[in-house]
Amino acid sequence: MTQAWWLNPCKSLDAEALEQATARQQQLTKPAGSLGQLEAVAVQLAGLQGQVKPRVDAVWIAIFAGDHGVVAEGVSAFPQAVTGQMLANFVSGGAAISVLARQLGATLEVIDLGTINPALNLPGVRHLNIGPGTANFVLGAAMSPTQGEQALHAGRDSALRAVADGAQLFIGGEMGIGNTTAASALACALLDCPVAQLTGPGTGLDAAGVSHKSQVIERALARHAGQRSDVLHSLFNLGGFEIAALVGAYLACAQEGVAVLVDGFICSVAALVAVRLNPGCREWLLFGHRGAEPGHRHVLETLGAEPLLDLGLRLGEGSGAALAVPLLRLACDLHGQMATFAEAAVADRPA
Amino acid sequence: MTQAWWLNPCKSLDAEALEQATARQQQLTKPAGSLGQLEAVAVQLAGLQGQVKPRVDAVWIAIFAGDHGVVAEGVSAFPQAVTGQMLANFVSGGAAISVLARQLGATLEVIDLGTINPALNLPGVRHLNIGPGTANFVLGAAMSPTQGEQALHAGRDSALRAVADGAQLFIGGEMGIGNTTAASALACALLDCPVAQLTGPGTGLDAAGVSHKSQVIERALARHAGQRSDVLHSLFNLGGFEIAALVGAYLACAQEGVAVLVDGFICSVAALVAVRLNPGCREWLLFGHRGAEPGHRHVLETLGAEPLLDLGLRLGEGSGAALAVPLLRLACDLHGQMATFAEAAVADRPA
Repeated sequence: MTQAWWLNPCKSLDAEALEQATARQQQLTKPAGSLGQLEAVAVQLAGLQGQVKPRVDAVWIAIFAGDHGVVAEGVSAFPQAVTGQMLANFVSGGAAISVLARQLGATLEVIDLGTINPALNLPGVRHLNIGPGTANFVLGAAMSPTQGEQALHAGRDSALRAVADGAQLFIGGEMGIGNTTAASALACALLDCPVAQLTGPGTGLDAAGVSHKSQVIERALARHAGQRSDVLHSLFNLGGFEIAALVGAYLACAQEGVAVLVDGFICSVAALVAVRLNPGCREWLLFGHRGAEPGHRHVLETLGAEPLLDLGLRLGEGSGAALAVPLLRLACDLHGQMATFAEAAVADRPA
Repeated sequence: MTQAWWLNPCKSLDAEALEQATARQQQLTKPAGSLGQLEAVAVQLAGLQGQVKPRVDAVWIAIFAGDHGVVAEGVSAFPQAVTGQMLANFVSGGAAISVLARQLGATLEVIDLGTINPALNLPGVRHLNIGPGTANFVLGAAMSPTQGEQALHAGRDSALRAVADGAQLFIGGEMGIGNTTAASALACALLDCPVAQLTGPGTGLDAAGVSHKSQVIERALARHAGQRSDVLHSLFNLGGFEIAALVGAYLACAQEGVAVLVDGFICSVAALVAVRLNPGCREWLLFGHRGAEPGHRHVLETLGAEPLLDLGLRLGEGSGAALAVPLLRLACDLHGQMATFAEAAVADRPA
């Protein structure tokens, strides 16, 4: 491991498994291509897992939470205390992702990277106390390089726990009042894209609120323009602890060889940062859904991502990715269990 | 039951359950609306099932199969013998829908309404022998009124078995080489829409094949133009046994009070026929996916349907609806199990 471990090479796909899975898909008792995206997903998972018949039984869901100093600028519909309150809700089982993890039989871990209440001590939550939330990035860097590297490393640690637990799929979720502002600012810096195109209502701003949020982001971008071409420093300047942790988790998964299912807008921006830092991670990333936040579509297009769901979700917490897990599982079941034309004695179409 | 039982009134939604479920959605620990389509689906199911916390545990999948005389015109990429061969594949467990039903814990029944081989006798398949496939509808009516009513009734019988079995959701699937031609012709007759807009490659025609298929449909529409305004006779003239059975099943479900999850293009055309015959059935129909067959989008728009998935599927067999079942189940789990703001002591946003 180099100092900058996140630049270490990502694992390669298994070309033989990929080829055999592709051949198998052609022999199953259905018109070629008639299972649409699910065929490509099963084949990709075969290449990632190095087996012709992949499985997505063991799913690891890590929720990364952090507070955001930029909330002082009035960019969120909810008060900042909600981040900590939702941490309690995650572990007591009442949040959306808690319900989904339970129904999917997935392991759920909750990591508090740093909220406004450093005294928070909830059973079942890993409190890392990297800082009392990020600093207000309109005034300076959101986090120091040391804090940023701590957050990246926290994501990597979660990925390594998933590997040790035998996870076949990693889902990162996020919670942090104000984090669509951070994600939009970061995406603007990386994509050189008009702020209005990447800024939306988040948890529920009205039009005036979105306009104000855009202005806050403009000021932040101007403040940090000098380091805009540096991906890592843009992450530290404009990101959040949970966003940096997601970047670290995605990169570690790609290095260790665990498929990732990316959630919504904020996670997709983290995926964009990960791909810009270390492009080899891209093929380890599957995308769960296209969300309602308007910037999400643009980030997905930049990544060449074809998400599985499009249900107008905008909750975060990893919920959109979790909702797509049954599709991955069923894609694997179809791929692994359907009869071939030869086995079923069904006529394939004449050449 | 009148003679034309399909015109009997459909069950009404439970207004109180609908109202209470709507109120409950507003109290769950998430930004209002952030679960997108899944919120509306859970509320609709509450109204349909008459309980504030609906469930989709018991799922009934009925595959209706039939052959199509119009295949003599060269409109399909696969030989007609495949219909019977796939019936065997359904019951032996190797078809896509067999795998999906098994994974979902759904009951799967397979009904052969009439294929080119009347001697077919497969354990586990209900052979009804309404005819040796339909007649070639370019030359005459696809089926007689007697055959059509038998097929409608066969669908109703399946729905009644589902009710007796305690099904909370009914999925109809179809199998029949040539049935996209029948569905396109029927949709053109009902929608007064250019044939090219509703005709596609089905299981895998090339451009020349699609063009030929359009011409065959034009001839059929001209042949039956006199009865075009009569929905039931258009069904008998241009449909298939399995399409008529789906119509009967959907209407019986709506009369008996079982929610329906409609599959792809062919099933959506059957849903269109059902709605035109008896508009009260519309609110009992949920839609599983938007498929690859180009006419599907148009039929869905006409029905005001918002399907859950859009994965480029074009297999039929009820597979696209089956793939959406986990979303319905998770929508119910989220609706029923998430904590309210009060229960979790999470701050709702200031009005």
